[in-house]
Amino acid sequence: MKLIRCGEPGQEYPGVELEDGTQIDVSDFGSDFDEDFFGTDGIQKLKSWLKNNKSQNKLVPAGTRLGPPVKRPSKIICIGLNYAKHAEESGATVPEEPVIFFKATSAIVGPNDDLIIPKNSTKTDWEVELGIVIGKKASYVSKEEAMDHVAGYVLHNDYSEREFQLERAGQWVKGKSCDTFAPIGPYVVTKDEVKDPHNLKLWLKLNGEIKQQSNTSDMVFDVPTVVSYLSQFMSLMPGDIISTGTPFGVGMGLKPQRYVKPGDVIELGIDGLGSSKQVARAWQES
Amino acid sequence: MKLIRCGEPGQEYPGVELEDGTQIDVSDFGSDFDEDFFGTDGIQKLKSWLKNNKSQNKLVPAGTRLGPPVKRPSKIICIGLNYAKHAEESGATVPEEPVIFFKATSAIVGPNDDLIIPKNSTKTDWEVELGIVIGKKASYVSKEEAMDHVAGYVLHNDYSEREFQLERAGQWVKGKSCDTFAPIGPYVVTKDEVKDPHNLKLWLKLNGEIKQQSNTSDMVFDVPTVVSYLSQFMSLMPGDIISTGTPFGVGMGLKPQRYVKPGDVIELGIDGLGSSKQVARAWQES
Repeated sequence: MKLIRCGEPGQEYPGVELEDGTQIDVSDFGSDFDEDFFGTDGIQKLKSWLKNNKSQNKLVPAGTRLGPPVKRPSKIICIGLNYAKHAEESGATVPEEPVIFFKATSAIVGPNDDLIIPKNSTKTDWEVELGIVIGKKASYVSKEEAMDHVAGYVLHNDYSEREFQLERAGQWVKGKSCDTFAPIGPYVVTKDEVKDPHNLKLWLKLNGEIKQQSNTSDMVFDVPTVVSYLSQFMSLMPGDIISTGTPFGVGMGLKPQRYVKPGDVIELGIDGLGSSKQVARAWQES
Repeated sequence: MKLIRCGEPGQEYPGVELEDGTQIDVSDFGSDFDEDFFGTDGIQKLKSWLKNNKSQNKLVPAGTRLGPPVKRPSKIICIGLNYAKHAEESGATVPEEPVIFFKATSAIVGPNDDLIIPKNSTKTDWEVELGIVIGKKASYVSKEEAMDHVAGYVLHNDYSEREFQLERAGQWVKGKSCDTFAPIGPYVVTKDEVKDPHNLKLWLKLNGEIKQQSNTSDMVFDVPTVVSYLSQFMSLMPGDIISTGTPFGVGMGLKPQRYVKPGDVIELGIDGLGSSKQVARAWQES
């Protein structure tokens, strides 16, 4: 099943994208795609509801904006340096255990919303990533149990301001949390539809030119490892997003370095998880 | 006004502690103390409601547990090394601009709940801190405007596992986010009742013995500076908590170092913000 959320920012309603691409409004199901939904077996309940209510499908009007397919999770946890070639381009070595950092949930936007280059930013960069969506609270789970706690997967562009992240007094979160820095979606694909999360091509284009192209098979720490590992340090809540790191090809690693400018078009995708597209614009006093 | 939340974990209802210490149940007001409450002028509305409904005050039953006085904020942002003597005991120098890190909101508990020492932890440490509660969304606000975005203040113990934080591959968040690592409260004190947030004594005792004792006048970056600064990097949402750093006297800085053991009693307080008390216990398979 592909979960979507549709409508204007802050007023999204839940929907489902069917196999033929039709998007249906499931607000009558009575639950948005939030912590409570994922934590109370919402995916299974929605599946049953859909079967019983097929004849009454309401279509999402054409041209409706897609919002983020998860409603404000409690946290976004990102894995740093989880692809060997990206670690190298960042001037780092592959860590012995996962490096983690957080991203503010206030950075979340829809998959095709504009990227706003922050005020005073000169080093806004892109990072295509596979996001894991947690389905069941996870605390001290083993690798073997980990997949029971996964609801599905989502495409994420982990935008990063490299000066804020690396040159402004410690801790990466400062360069990861600007508004619009976390476009997620188009949809959450439930895990039953992703045969092997460790064999998905992922790519990112800047103005039509390929910049990142890799496969999740290159991840250093795989999905069960990451879920189990994180759950040793904190409880993962239903709906939480774990972003599993980006492959080689970010702007910081290019020679010469290339950062996002107003008017740039960034497109990205992952096998089976769809694609998204952001147009960059400069921050303006509102 | 002193905002409290009462009842069993996950089932707290809102309340107010009156000047004479009486705790009243304000669930009939119809809004819990969450992002929506703070973001829609809830404090003023609750004040009016209280005036008009004085005669119908329902008391909170004696012995009721206090929960965290803010319902799951979107984020907890912490300022690192914001007291010069603490920077020194940590082997660091005072940063030129604020160092920031996040703490998972899943770590939040009531002020007097048990501290659970995480599995495999040997270096669980304490940090008494002044927390700022955001009252109005803040994005790119100046120092002069910053106080308009503050709702009030809250006592916070920023528990930290030093091995997880400092010895386990980069980024402090790993040692800051364990369950029960963020006892907040007893209450949020609205800013009109805190004459000068930069002249408050704060203290922490371990088993009755003073370990931390300082004054918020010793903070390197003050409240307006911190709010304005953070708002340059991300939107601060109503209800968000900014923890302004801890003074000298953490366990890591003692000679010999002293970390929390099962059975330890940690008490802490800040002038006008009340006190809290946690009893430490070892993690156990539940």
